[in-house]
Amino acid sequence: MLIGLDWGTSALRAYLLDGDGKVVDSAAAPLGILKVPQGDFDGAFEQIAGGWLGVHADAAVIACGMIGSRQGWREVPYVSCPAGLAELAGGLAAVQTRRGRTVHLVPGVARIDADGVPDVMRGEETMIFGAANAVVGKAGHYVLPGTHSKWARLEGGRIAWFATFMTGELFAVLRSHSILGRLMQGEAHDAEAFQEGVRHALAQPAGRGGLLRRLFSVRTLGLFDRLPASGLHSYLSGLLIGTEALEARACIGSTAGAPSATATLLGSAELVALYGEALATAGFACVQLDESAAARGLHRIASAAGISPSAAVA
Amino acid sequence: MLIGLDWGTSALRAYLLDGDGKVVDSAAAPLGILKVPQGDFDGAFEQIAGGWLGVHADAAVIACGMIGSRQGWREVPYVSCPAGLAELAGGLAAVQTRRGRTVHLVPGVARIDADGVPDVMRGEETMIFGAANAVVGKAGHYVLPGTHSKWARLEGGRIAWFATFMTGELFAVLRSHSILGRLMQGEAHDAEAFQEGVRHALAQPAGRGGLLRRLFSVRTLGLFDRLPASGLHSYLSGLLIGTEALEARACIGSTAGAPSATATLLGSAELVALYGEALATAGFACVQLDESAAARGLHRIASAAGISPSAAVA
Repeated sequence: MLIGLDWGTSALRAYLLDGDGKVVDSAAAPLGILKVPQGDFDGAFEQIAGGWLGVHADAAVIACGMIGSRQGWREVPYVSCPAGLAELAGGLAAVQTRRGRTVHLVPGVARIDADGVPDVMRGEETMIFGAANAVVGKAGHYVLPGTHSKWARLEGGRIAWFATFMTGELFAVLRSHSILGRLMQGEAHDAEAFQEGVRHALAQPAGRGGLLRRLFSVRTLGLFDRLPASGLHSYLSGLLIGTEALEARACIGSTAGAPSATATLLGSAELVALYGEALATAGFACVQLDESAAARGLHRIASAAGISPSAAVA
Repeated sequence: MLIGLDWGTSALRAYLLDGDGKVVDSAAAPLGILKVPQGDFDGAFEQIAGGWLGVHADAAVIACGMIGSRQGWREVPYVSCPAGLAELAGGLAAVQTRRGRTVHLVPGVARIDADGVPDVMRGEETMIFGAANAVVGKAGHYVLPGTHSKWARLEGGRIAWFATFMTGELFAVLRSHSILGRLMQGEAHDAEAFQEGVRHALAQPAGRGGLLRRLFSVRTLGLFDRLPASGLHSYLSGLLIGTEALEARACIGSTAGAPSATATLLGSAELVALYGEALATAGFACVQLDESAAARGLHRIASAAGISPSAAVA
């Protein structure tokens, strides 16, 4: 058996997997790395997986995500693009738990742009390879919406390019801390206002400016009663996600290799639905996969590294 | 005599002007409209100008800025672009103080884009006409950096076009509330990091994306020790101001009329210096004027309206 941990900043998800990578049990806790009391990762691990460890004494353990960052259990150096299963397996780092178990930490992936600006991911690489498993052999673009959205291109079974967009975090800080949030009312999604935001982001008449200018429309459309207060948060969401699609489209169109107009979306159902709508408006054909891609990805990396018993036997 | 008030969201500045518009006395207080206790604007007015009123019983009073907004003393309807001194004078609204004085409130200016999206200013129009006074008869572009930066074009003595960029507010919320602020240390300006941010914003190689993507470089350049923690806030500042220059340049290039590569900067000395550097990098020739433009603008509007005694006599 294999215990796989998807351990991010705010949440910890655990999977018990059999030799074929099938999820036979799972658990989740609000024990992201910034929420673990006193940084006792060992204790948090025992809390979520202790029961499984008692039953499956020989289970291997593998974890991906921010648990391998400077603020996590142990900092695991990034592997560089292009990065495939072999590179990720080769970059695993181990920590020993108090009761003597080994936890293998998946490295993140780094990419340095031509101008020297780095980009990084931790955790998304594992989801991508879980998804790649689901759509075997298919090169293309993967989109992982979230606080820091990732767009990645898979070529020859390796992550050849990726980029980060601060869409989710910008939405959160503007809603909670800027003047744009002052006119907003309610939480319910307003589909019409969302689509209006996407359209405003994607419209490119000359002289309209970019995001710094367009953001102010969240305030003025509210002030002039062109949008209801209850729809302004959805309008901002559409404006930002639409802008992300626009920026990513420009990136993708210019990277080497055949540009793909198909995007595979990976993430929570709610975000994937919003992105699916915005990306379709931006001209992408979308394939939507769920978050369990992480479990499949952990199993593939463990197999590539030969640390899961089944793989060791094989 | 004329008493002129530049009454914004966070600060109140008052000027005592003679018939020629010369400032003979001035005062300032942290009594912006959101900081006046119980919204007692009358009391705040007496506090800052009561002494002058006692000596100059016949002084007219005029105020510009957010004091004329929905959250201010009285909401004054916007006048539409193109707006000159005559339109602003014609849009003045009056409030009576408890001791029977009349305070004339300058209207803001609104502009509706071709796609129906409104833009607004309150207070900046007065500074622009104060500056236009200083450079008589000169058409061109005016830039007023701040929380919500304004770019405006003056044609035939009227504001023909303007646009708002949320640069200052975005800097503040990202620094205080986002992950980008976590690695930042210190307050001192780092000129080299600022210029690096400007360059990164203005560089346009294919595939680099826009602001949502570039923002993440504030984190990664810190993580990879490419920039010192003490320079990251200046880098973010340069990145945002450079992006504003880029967006504004695209707007200006496409508006009707002769595009001008000269920008007249109006604002605080510190911001004007930063913008001057960024705009020069972006290819603008800059003329820098100080904040006292507001006093000159108030005097010109009062004269156009015939409410200042000297103008009434003339």
